[in-house]
Amino acid sequence: MSSSSPFRMQLVHLDLKGAPPKVLYLAEIFPLFHALGANGILIEYEDMFPYEGPLHLLKARHAYSPSEIKEILHLAKLHDLEVIPLVQTFGHMEVYYLGEGEMSKQWLQQEQNNMVKLCLSQMKAVASHVLIHHPNVKPIVWDDMLRGISEECLTESGIAQLVEPMIWDYIEDMDVHGKVLLMDKYRKCGFPKLWVASAFKGATGVNQSLTIISHHLKNNIQWLKVADSGPAEMLQGIVLTGWQRYDHFSVLCELLPVGIPSLAVCLQALKHGGYTDHVKKIVEQYLGMSDLEINSFMSESSGTFPGSDVFTLITQVSFHLRRSVDELLERNRYVTGWFSPYHRKRKMIHPVMIQHIQPDAVSLLTRWNAVIQELQAALERIFYPDAVEEWLEENTHPTIQKLQQLLQDLDAAIAAQS
Amino acid sequence: MSSSSPFRMQLVHLDLKGAPPKVLYLAEIFPLFHALGANGILIEYEDMFPYEGPLHLLKARHAYSPSEIKEILHLAKLHDLEVIPLVQTFGHMEVYYLGEGEMSKQWLQQEQNNMVKLCLSQMKAVASHVLIHHPNVKPIVWDDMLRGISEECLTESGIAQLVEPMIWDYIEDMDVHGKVLLMDKYRKCGFPKLWVASAFKGATGVNQSLTIISHHLKNNIQWLKVADSGPAEMLQGIVLTGWQRYDHFSVLCELLPVGIPSLAVCLQALKHGGYTDHVKKIVEQYLGMSDLEINSFMSESSGTFPGSDVFTLITQVSFHLRRSVDELLERNRYVTGWFSPYHRKRKMIHPVMIQHIQPDAVSLLTRWNAVIQELQAALERIFYPDAVEEWLEENTHPTIQKLQQLLQDLDAAIAAQS
Repeated sequence: MSSSSPFRMQLVHLDLKGAPPKVLYLAEIFPLFHALGANGILIEYEDMFPYEGPLHLLKARHAYSPSEIKEILHLAKLHDLEVIPLVQTFGHMEVYYLGEGEMSKQWLQQEQNNMVKLCLSQMKAVASHVLIHHPNVKPIVWDDMLRGISEECLTESGIAQLVEPMIWDYIEDMDVHGKVLLMDKYRKCGFPKLWVASAFKGATGVNQSLTIISHHLKNNIQWLKVADSGPAEMLQGIVLTGWQRYDHFSVLCELLPVGIPSLAVCLQALKHGGYTDHVKKIVEQYLGMSDLEINSFMSESSGTFPGSDVFTLITQVSFHLRRSVDELLERNRYVTGWFSPYHRKRKMIHPVMIQHIQPDAVSLLTRWNAVIQELQAALERIFYPDAVEEWLEENTHPTIQKLQQLLQDLDAAIAAQS
Repeated sequence: MSSSSPFRMQLVHLDLKGAPPKVLYLAEIFPLFHALGANGILIEYEDMFPYEGPLHLLKARHAYSPSEIKEILHLAKLHDLEVIPLVQTFGHMEVYYLGEGEMSKQWLQQEQNNMVKLCLSQMKAVASHVLIHHPNVKPIVWDDMLRGISEECLTESGIAQLVEPMIWDYIEDMDVHGKVLLMDKYRKCGFPKLWVASAFKGATGVNQSLTIISHHLKNNIQWLKVADSGPAEMLQGIVLTGWQRYDHFSVLCELLPVGIPSLAVCLQALKHGGYTDHVKKIVEQYLGMSDLEINSFMSESSGTFPGSDVFTLITQVSFHLRRSVDELLERNRYVTGWFSPYHRKRKMIHPVMIQHIQPDAVSLLTRWNAVIQELQAALERIFYPDAVEEWLEENTHPTIQKLQQLLQDLDAAIAAQS
């Protein structure tokens, strides 16, 4: 249990719906989670669970095997991390289209029925099913659908006896007072316990590749304030979510190793009740970084934590790849003035200009290919091939292809001259 | 002759090596040149001259016909514009490789010979040829090669009796004192007269599409200072150059109509000895603009001067075309998050996302196609087809193609679903 934290449980969320880490990496990172003050993990399995029988179709190509799941649970236990599994039943996709099925439509036509009742009856059905089969398990539900329901309806429904709500908010200037009122509402409706969720990554931009630490620190500090003002006895714990995609159809956002410095800052801030210079020093020690900058993406030092090579190389690529190539393609005067789209289409170039362009372009491409190769190797140690391919294709290919195209067009123009 | 200007002649330079205007446009713009204070034009013919005989190969496809040349000269006379023709003899391209020919190499091997003498002997040969055939013509030479030659060599060479140098500098913080010293050097070497050249466009970026008026105003103000401090009796006049390309192999820079507001500001500043609010008002009247902003590219009003439609539309395209398309392609969350390069390559998209992307992209493309069509019509009135094609291809096609590609990829992804 953490020193001064108002949260009994501090869980790290592992969202496996994109770039799930290999077990090897979990083995490296769990000790750090523990050291930083986490005492649990919320595993959102998605298609990484080794489903069998009729559900086996849901399994991803690189889904964990049953023995890998056992290994993960063993590793978690070894490092004092309680495991809460998260399995989708009624996610965004279902909930967005609530009441649109034929049976639901008929049910809703009866006078005493409405959408709120439909939603609550589904939640109760699922929760009851779990409780009947696993009487010692208490289901937790995201509170998206609960928060708008009137106190009266909630109380009458009896849902408070079946589930514990998880109030979530990931923005930096979160309304503390509003959250305290919401907790009080749930208390009045009879929920004996509840959870809250902050974020340490994956909540600031659908295609974000680097983590804005200051954003997440502020968000977690706001949650500390909520905990200080709200009904303390209800509070089970806080989950630091680390989203991997905004939904199943969107691109990857920050990879887990990239979010580790933010996770460290947030966990330690929760543990110490804030983020002081002293806490900063502790975090830097845990990460092996000489100076951790939380207000900009660029940290001087790269760290020694597991996956810090990925963190460093992705920082480098995100900052400089596109910038350096655009510098050559869009601001270099020889390229913009003497080898423009017009020239390239017509394979025209003044011979003197070749030497002003080609060596720089070749050297830039060579340099970046080396960095990307290094990054690929670092990614492959931690992630499965499909995730490595997706990240590189999304974040490096378009820019590298522009540079390669310039060189190809240059070759074509040179060939056309001779 | 201008009111308070220290320059007897104020010439507008017409650089015809890119986007030469049709005679029709010259007929419209010459009266404005005259009204603004110009009393001459320096026509750099390049391949627009109707060369005949063995030189006919030099002629451009849309070169002026002999009758058009007569018409131009007639129009110039009509509006009190003295014409100075500029024909390349010894331009950058020749001069850069001076001494590299076989005959030159042999000549240079003789002890008393050197590069300076080689250069001067070439200049003298050309000038003498002109003077023998046209005793009333005085050749003017750009002073690039003269300025570095010692007073002694220059004086001894006798070049001062054959040509008048044109000192040029287009930068905004031009060294006034250095120019005064240079004029004094030429005086000492026996040159009785000289010219200076400022710029009103085409000197601030090889692929510049809009003119930075403040830059050119400052440059011309510096030349006013030179004229005030230098040997006034030597000063024949100032040429306001308006470059159309940096060299024969580079892209187009600002088109003539785009540079007209800058030309008006510069000519009136030279005429009135500076640029005051009063002068600004006069310029605005000549241009039919309610507010001419010299420090930014965006002027509130578009003007009524000849070619002001081109000026307005090119301003619009340069400012907003790429920005608005990049906004959609690189910052719109639906595109970046749900229809990224990764999705597009795989023809994957969530059906809900189509409606978040397609209507905006179609509407943007439709809007820009209409603007570009209008611009094309405005350009075609003033320029020949090859220049219109070159400008549009360079400045609009790459961006429009990116937008079209998005829509094509979207269609492909939609088709792949059904």
